[in-house]
Amino acid sequence: MNAKNLPDAANLQLTPQGGLHHLLTLRGLDRHLLSKLLDQAETYLSPMGEPPIRTNLLAGRTIANLFFEPSTRTRASFELAAKRLGADVLNLDVNTSSRKKGESILDTIYTLQAMQIDVFVIRDASAGIPAYIVGNVEPHISILNAGEADVSHPTQGLLDLLTIRQCKGAFEDLTVTIVGDIAHSRVARSVAEGLTTMGVGELRLVSPRSLAPDPATVPRAIITDDLERGLRGTDVVMALRIQRERIADLQGIPGADEYYANFGISSERMKLAAADAIVMHPGPMNREVEIESGLADSPQSVIARQVTNGVAVRMAILAAVTESQKCR
Amino acid sequence: MNAKNLPDAANLQLTPQGGLHHLLTLRGLDRHLLSKLLDQAETYLSPMGEPPIRTNLLAGRTIANLFFEPSTRTRASFELAAKRLGADVLNLDVNTSSRKKGESILDTIYTLQAMQIDVFVIRDASAGIPAYIVGNVEPHISILNAGEADVSHPTQGLLDLLTIRQCKGAFEDLTVTIVGDIAHSRVARSVAEGLTTMGVGELRLVSPRSLAPDPATVPRAIITDDLERGLRGTDVVMALRIQRERIADLQGIPGADEYYANFGISSERMKLAAADAIVMHPGPMNREVEIESGLADSPQSVIARQVTNGVAVRMAILAAVTESQKCR
Amino acid sequence: MNAKNLPDAANLQLTPQGGLHHLLTLRGLDRHLLSKLLDQAETYLSPMGEPPIRTNLLAGRTIANLFFEPSTRTRASFELAAKRLGADVLNLDVNTSSRKKGESILDTIYTLQAMQIDVFVIRDASAGIPAYIVGNVEPHISILNAGEADVSHPTQGLLDLLTIRQCKGAFEDLTVTIVGDIAHSRVARSVAEGLTTMGVGELRLVSPRSLAPDPATVPRAIITDDLERGLRGTDVVMALRIQRERIADLQGIPGADEYYANFGISSERMKLAAADAIVMHPGPMNREVEIESGLADSPQSVIARQVTNGVAVRMAILAAVTESQKCR
Repeated sequence: MNAKNLPDAANLQLTPQGGLHHLLTLRGLDRHLLSKLLDQAETYLSPMGEPPIRTNLLAGRTIANLFFEPSTRTRASFELAAKRLGADVLNLDVNTSSRKKGESILDTIYTLQAMQIDVFVIRDASAGIPAYIVGNVEPHISILNAGEADVSHPTQGLLDLLTIRQCKGAFEDLTVTIVGDIAHSRVARSVAEGLTTMGVGELRLVSPRSLAPDPATVPRAIITDDLERGLRGTDVVMALRIQRERIADLQGIPGADEYYANFGISSERMKLAAADAIVMHPGPMNREVEIESGLADSPQSVIARQVTNGVAVRMAILAAVTESQKCR
Repeated sequence: MNAKNLPDAANLQLTPQGGLHHLLTLRGLDRHLLSKLLDQAETYLSPMGEPPIRTNLLAGRTIANLFFEPSTRTRASFELAAKRLGADVLNLDVNTSSRKKGESILDTIYTLQAMQIDVFVIRDASAGIPAYIVGNVEPHISILNAGEADVSHPTQGLLDLLTIRQCKGAFEDLTVTIVGDIAHSRVARSVAEGLTTMGVGELRLVSPRSLAPDPATVPRAIITDDLERGLRGTDVVMALRIQRERIADLQGIPGADEYYANFGISSERMKLAAADAIVMHPGPMNREVEIESGLADSPQSVIARQVTNGVAVRMAILAAVTESQKCR
Repeated sequence: MNAKNLPDAANLQLTPQGGLHHLLTLRGLDRHLLSKLLDQAETYLSPMGEPPIRTNLLAGRTIANLFFEPSTRTRASFELAAKRLGADVLNLDVNTSSRKKGESILDTIYTLQAMQIDVFVIRDASAGIPAYIVGNVEPHISILNAGEADVSHPTQGLLDLLTIRQCKGAFEDLTVTIVGDIAHSRVARSVAEGLTTMGVGELRLVSPRSLAPDPATVPRAIITDDLERGLRGTDVVMALRIQRERIADLQGIPGADEYYANFGISSERMKLAAADAIVMHPGPMNREVEIESGLADSPQSVIARQVTNGVAVRMAILAAVTESQKCR
């Protein structure tokens, strides 16, 4: 979480009436709005094995997936969310190498905007790109952040909130422990922001010291490299992978075996947690590195549920931003 | 056809009620079931030049095309089949290089399964992957094999059966000759299995000795390297390309000119066959290698018809597995 | 514009009843037909910020985008046009490296044709490919040229005509100036053809001498390397980029800075033009090379409008060719 500060992203997201215009970060979204989004997402869930919910709410709308970083899971999740709301979907996997100057991403956006795209879903390896785009598009368009450098991944944060709320109820009574590469994780940052807003009882961030966050960015969290202390009595354990692709100098970063020995989440270690604690992972998962393979497939694991909730949360976001497009 | 045995794939495909749950191989599917699928496929055919048949039978269903081997023709055929039944389609062209361990394909499947995919269409260069996935997915999901190493390509087998039935009627009275790289062809294997089940009169497999099949795998077929003997009086000639990408050591494998001279199917050689014999090729076709170019475009050729039947057969398969999903 | 002559493409496009069967080039299409297409395109435009027009005119039809040259903007424009008419869309990005022989593109077309594709949208780096395909497909199929070497880009030409007509009215009274790499631009060629048919008052083509067109290909145009003379009193200025990827020997071709100094379109230079002159660019745009960045974003610029019109024009073309498919 050592990305440069983007003080404005949080203030760009709402319409004057308080509706969701863009989703750039969970910062600046209050408990009421987050709860309403989670409630809406619940309406898009159907029992496993039954057909998914499908509506025509977004018929005639066009959603563009503009991924400047490769992705299978998040792109597929947004694509299915849009299609299940009846929207037209345009997939554009753009190689960053074709983007030399700062302006050229804007020219791509200007071109697509002129094709009457309603919502842009954007993933980019550079911090600040989604907010930069918000500052330059036509006001009737919505921008959704689908992963921004190590800064923010708000839809992932929301699906994690939904999963925790489904399994555990009230946030105030909960202890949540995130274990892994906190320093470079946009997931950790968004989850921490969301949990803080929802008034989580206690948030513990566990990592090797070389992967610890800047304490200033997570003022209310307990930061530790003591896994036992992090796990003891906790209700929720979220394992994160090491974001090796974002670390310039891997010196001092533990290898896979060393990491698993010291920070891997195993059934044995889960005995330290509450008896009914759940295990989460945002994926993609490195079995036997961040997490014991059997634990990932055990009843304690809610990893598949996170993925299912991901589609529902993205449907709720798409519904919310297009709803507030009508009122602008 | 030297792939390792997969004794179980044939037994994984049917529901307890005898409906089609998965399609992994034509082995284990009886004549009644195959005929029913071909009959269903006939209902999805419209005259050339008229619009294709389009229904909403699969509205709200999601089909994922998961191709770990590149493909244009089969992927397009499945995509059109799914869209013409009103399904949502998710295309995922996954580079095999991103798949290092055996589990990771399962984690991809687990993720997509949690997004409420109903049917996975899978092409993979490794033998056994579709059956392996069947053994691990939720029971409400269906797996369709869209090409598995040199082992099986059941939808291609079915479209060939449909084409032969349309042109020639009863299988019992027919002689069918397959010419080419029988050893490495998943098409040859699936066609041979289908024809055997349908009770074909005689099946002849013609190839250079270096490309002959293991006789144990095709017990009822005549195996020969004598093209004249293979063609004499036959009703159906199917030409196959040499699968050079699957042959580790190309020593002893004929080059293009030598192959054409000795095994290429030409108008001249077709005079050995029955006067009304048809010529087939699964594509992609190497003109003037497996087949004389003019012959491929002549009235004797049913190559385009195979492609048209391919979409119809895949629609029938998608309809059959989603129908039996309802009854499970 | 030094491509080899293709004397027949212009004569392949119409049905016996005078309907549009294929769109290969603007040559051979008369003023009445072009005007009708532009009128139809107008019906597919909605005010910026409102949802795009969406119909079911092409429900059950299948459009295949077959791009042998990479493209984001034109492919997206055709995809949206087809989807907004309710068609099924098949995207095929085919690497030219997989196409060694002349025939193999035809075999790809034959295969897709047998899957009951109604319209092929084709972009190719070789001159003559769209007409070659027209000569070989079934007569019920339509071929649309989405960019052909340096020869033709007729939908771009049409969207430019539409934009000019919207902003300026009658073509007879207008002076239009195209500035840039005229020699290698399929856009310049198609625009020049369209403007000539529409009876434009005066057409000026301005470029460095090394990038000037063959005068025989544009007999009614004024060809000059004098930018001031080209801009003086003109009503429309269209800037083009240098097609470096199509120039074998870059010796004598100006670099970016030199080009901007001598041929870049700036606000200052626009003072030479009519007071209400508009600025156009087909994109992708190199800011501060062909065009001053601020000018591209100024009220004089109609670049975004060109893009919007592009979708509408492609909808009109798709509607026209499928309409005339019914009457054949």
